[in-house]
Amino acid sequence: MKKSLLALIFCSFSAFAQDSDSLVIRKIYNEILSKGDAYKTLTHLSKKIGPRLSGSEGAAKAVQYTKKVMEDYGFERVFLQDVMVPHWVRGQKETAFIEAGKQKINVPIAALGGSIATPAAGIKAEVIEVKNFEELEALGTEKVKGKIVLFNRPMDPTKVNTFEAYSGAVNQRGNGASQAAKYGAVGAIVRSMTTLQDDNPHTGGMRYATGVPMIPTAAISTNGANLLSKMLKENPKLQFYFKQSCESLPDAPSHNVVGEIKGTEKPDEIIVVGGHLDSWDLAEGAQDDGAGCVQSIEVLRALKALGIKPKRTIRVVMFMNEENGLRGGTKYADLAKQNNEKHIAAIESDNGGFTPRGFGMVGTDAQIAKVAVYKNLLSAYDLKEIGRGGGGADIGPLGQQGTLLIGFKPDSQRYFDFHHAKTDTLEAVNERELNLGAASMAALVYLLDKYGL
Amino acid sequence: MKKSLLALIFCSFSAFAQDSDSLVIRKIYNEILSKGDAYKTLTHLSKKIGPRLSGSEGAAKAVQYTKKVMEDYGFERVFLQDVMVPHWVRGQKETAFIEAGKQKINVPIAALGGSIATPAAGIKAEVIEVKNFEELEALGTEKVKGKIVLFNRPMDPTKVNTFEAYSGAVNQRGNGASQAAKYGAVGAIVRSMTTLQDDNPHTGGMRYATGVPMIPTAAISTNGANLLSKMLKENPKLQFYFKQSCESLPDAPSHNVVGEIKGTEKPDEIIVVGGHLDSWDLAEGAQDDGAGCVQSIEVLRALKALGIKPKRTIRVVMFMNEENGLRGGTKYADLAKQNNEKHIAAIESDNGGFTPRGFGMVGTDAQIAKVAVYKNLLSAYDLKEIGRGGGGADIGPLGQQGTLLIGFKPDSQRYFDFHHAKTDTLEAVNERELNLGAASMAALVYLLDKYGL
Repeated sequence: MKKSLLALIFCSFSAFAQDSDSLVIRKIYNEILSKGDAYKTLTHLSKKIGPRLSGSEGAAKAVQYTKKVMEDYGFERVFLQDVMVPHWVRGQKETAFIEAGKQKINVPIAALGGSIATPAAGIKAEVIEVKNFEELEALGTEKVKGKIVLFNRPMDPTKVNTFEAYSGAVNQRGNGASQAAKYGAVGAIVRSMTTLQDDNPHTGGMRYATGVPMIPTAAISTNGANLLSKMLKENPKLQFYFKQSCESLPDAPSHNVVGEIKGTEKPDEIIVVGGHLDSWDLAEGAQDDGAGCVQSIEVLRALKALGIKPKRTIRVVMFMNEENGLRGGTKYADLAKQNNEKHIAAIESDNGGFTPRGFGMVGTDAQIAKVAVYKNLLSAYDLKEIGRGGGGADIGPLGQQGTLLIGFKPDSQRYFDFHHAKTDTLEAVNERELNLGAASMAALVYLLDKYGL
Repeated sequence: MKKSLLALIFCSFSAFAQDSDSLVIRKIYNEILSKGDAYKTLTHLSKKIGPRLSGSEGAAKAVQYTKKVMEDYGFERVFLQDVMVPHWVRGQKETAFIEAGKQKINVPIAALGGSIATPAAGIKAEVIEVKNFEELEALGTEKVKGKIVLFNRPMDPTKVNTFEAYSGAVNQRGNGASQAAKYGAVGAIVRSMTTLQDDNPHTGGMRYATGVPMIPTAAISTNGANLLSKMLKENPKLQFYFKQSCESLPDAPSHNVVGEIKGTEKPDEIIVVGGHLDSWDLAEGAQDDGAGCVQSIEVLRALKALGIKPKRTIRVVMFMNEENGLRGGTKYADLAKQNNEKHIAAIESDNGGFTPRGFGMVGTDAQIAKVAVYKNLLSAYDLKEIGRGGGGADIGPLGQQGTLLIGFKPDSQRYFDFHHAKTDTLEAVNERELNLGAASMAALVYLLDKYGL
């Protein structure tokens, strides 16, 4: 009986708070859906600046541009954080062909980020196809030595969430080259990480393991992988040729970009909302992760435009170098620790600017329960998935400081159509979907700020 | 205590049933996501046949094509239902311009379906802009007579669900002409029903009220409406010219296309799944409603491919003439009544082939509660919105026979970007999203068939 009474009191309070909060959240959505600026900023980032790989001129321009955008909005403090980043360059466009008897068929490839070049004349060798590292191990040095390994396990199309399908395939891209090199392979060609069947190679990061020779590695389009696989069945002795001239230059200076509104009551408690400013060199990086950047800026713009004065300090962060190093995210967390900053929560948008479905969190049960209380409020805006699991790469390092990590969770269906490919352009972004994402994030920031954690 | 015990027993049973059902549903998703045929069928419908307005050659071809597709899949019984449909034709492409002093600016318009033509020389008149019928009434005959009325209330961008925004604006298109004619207007120009700001007029159905003169009416692109509105503020005496040569021909013969698998245990209980085969003449009608048609066919194809033998009779229906008459849906229900058929449930997909969010229902509390039981099973596939509200135009007439009406509910954000405009092409459809919709519908059909209503 006592419990029910308490529950009743709590419900009444809660209902009252929810009423007033729902009004503010409605205003946030109205502002962003009718006067949102995110798409305009993204248009500049995509079309005027374009690719922004760490260390590139585009990345440097994007730093200056987003800093200026935040200054123009009148954020209280806008500043850069210095960070040294890897500086990998693709060099000349790659060439590749399948040679089977008299047939010579060109196929589209793109060097994976971090890969070494082939010799200037390219590499030509027989190909051995595998679906996973177990198959590779079973083949062993005898069958692999001197060959190019084709890693051809597709993303599983039956996974409803495409990020699960990606997770199930991406070790081929990240570790394939070194796994192949262990058995004496001379090159590694990896099926593009997409469920589409098309001609676009999707690049992405790879790492060389220590103690194993470094061999060149590239992504091949899914159509190219299918063709090569089919031809191999008919002619296991066919040869594959590829040539790439990428290289890793010395680390280059770059920056995280930070914009801030100081809290009125608890300025020492910080809430971060961010995305990563760098993108792969093949793409405009509109979805990955221009969308997350402009949404994050839009959060603070909208709160300011509505005259909402946060109790806590809200920071927008454009992280540098998520794609091939995570130096920006690491540096941000290092500085937070050095400066004894208390980050109560960090939200990252790095799954594209698609229709929002919810937020996925990494934190303690108590932290997650605090956010779960907002389910009703957020559910009214079709944010039905609020729970454990998610976070984000750039905010990840803050986790060690007890920060609740929150990943914005948009619909996942189209993301890997464009991801790391030349098709990741502004045209892949729908303005309403983008704005809805920004509004969801702004609503959550408003609640986290008002009630703390 | 007794209640708890019963609940426990129910839960155990339910958990067991859900386990086996979840396996079948997983198979359905696997089949459709890895071997789905819907996009291939849609490609033919969009690219080889194209626009399919009632009475057109395209509509007739689509009838024959979808009949053949169903026959080729080996559905047990495939048949046509005769139905006479309105036969409106656009005639020559419309022309329109704003004339203000020496300025003459062309703007894109498209006659609304059902509108009469202008005189051959077109109509030129002053323009009076209103946002709604109340404003029009307040202006009255004195201010409206002899003029062209511009209905310029936008779809409200702050509605998260775009269908709500559409509902809030579409009376201008449906009834604007007759409302304007009541006060002596000579024409009605209606802002396109889209939240995009662009140059594509979006056509759609309109009806003339009885007892009021019929005046020609057309949709104007949102950019055109904005321009006209802006120029009117500077120059209220400007003139607007438009010319269109559309006409309503005598009703034409057409068909619903029905494919069926007979139930093994209760063949007299019928479950319908369908979309409408007709489309507006400007578009390929890929989203509206090619998507719904091919998804419905895919439902039966997948069940058959998996060897699932339904207890009840499952019917796929391609309804004719949703866009400008609803004759197909009406005829289908009439025949059902005549033949004493018992339709327990009807599912319609006519909100586009986007990522599924759930199902919206019209029926008794008891019927809806029966479906709500499946929430857990469907939620695993991101179908979180299962509840009252929805249905569909074509299945609507079955409601009088006590049939539970179920509208497939996909994400709504992009639908009105293309709706009734020339941009509604195959390229607006994402294959994974389309397949997920078909899989959701197939899963629900499986459950409705197994457990009845």
